[in-house]
Amino acid sequence: MSDRELKFMQQALDLARQGMNNGIGGPFGCIIVKGDTIVGRGCNSVSSTNDPTAHAEVVAIRDACKNLQTFQLTDCEIYTSCEPCPMCMGAIYWARPKKVYFGASRHDAAAAGFDDSLIYKELTASLHDRIIEMVCLGSEKANEVFSEWKEKPDKIDY
Amino acid sequence: MSDRELKFMQQALDLARQGMNNGIGGPFGCIIVKGDTIVGRGCNSVSSTNDPTAHAEVVAIRDACKNLQTFQLTDCEIYTSCEPCPMCMGAIYWARPKKVYFGASRHDAAAAGFDDSLIYKELTASLHDRIIEMVCLGSEKANEVFSEWKEKPDKIDY
Repeated sequence: MSDRELKFMQQALDLARQGMNNGIGGPFGCIIVKGDTIVGRGCNSVSSTNDPTAHAEVVAIRDACKNLQTFQLTDCEIYTSCEPCPMCMGAIYWARPKKVYFGASRHDAAAAGFDDSLIYKELTASLHDRIIEMVCLGSEKANEVFSEWKEKPDKIDY
Repeated sequence: MSDRELKFMQQALDLARQGMNNGIGGPFGCIIVKGDTIVGRGCNSVSSTNDPTAHAEVVAIRDACKNLQTFQLTDCEIYTSCEPCPMCMGAIYWARPKKVYFGASRHDAAAAGFDDSLIYKELTASLHDRIIEMVCLGSEKANEVFSEWKEKPDKIDY
């Protein structure tokens, strides 16, 4: 572990602590680095912004993408104070950074009251066995929209 | 399947089509219903807003929570034109609605060029085996922040 990585991780931890102490949300912080520049920052802001998706990683990804004017974090590193939850992990895969560094593990988070093991379990359960009922209402009309997309000449792939 | 559910699904499909045709993003739409009122709307806005997290479900959840001034979608139903990806599934679990209705399946989405099977696979792979490298930088300092959270007298649980 080089000083460089530890220095960036400390900044993610500082954001986590500041967010917590300023009543912005839970004790989680994240920064995004490109080369040696911090291009995005975020702390958990769920309770202060009434946004259940405002986890530190999602906030930082949105901030970095806004700053870089792109929806792809190519060649970027993510430093997050805690192992990302499934939602944030999904966001990370869609943003496609090159590497993720984290501090606390998901087990540490669970011990602090932030248990996402349920979500990991549900994602691999069949739709019929999930706690939140998931019902297919028929795919025919939805697939018509997909067909129109496939034939759209000016679409932007992402 | 009652007319009620099919009517709401049609509105999600209309949003998907409008978003696609207006160049806002991919062919996905979502509405959130409480009782018989639509409380949130979203269409995929990834490419037009440079936000990789702006999937229809995330946009609709953020909109509904803003309108209802809460970070919990208790008693709400989600109607989405396509089976949610892992990121959106995570967002749904954090928002805790009572039910999710979807149109196209994840396999339909893959056939249309939106393949999230990689993300499902990665979420169950060990950290060492993932395509995006995930590195723990040590949990000690991160756990200090969690300890401070646990002792914080005025914290808002979410």
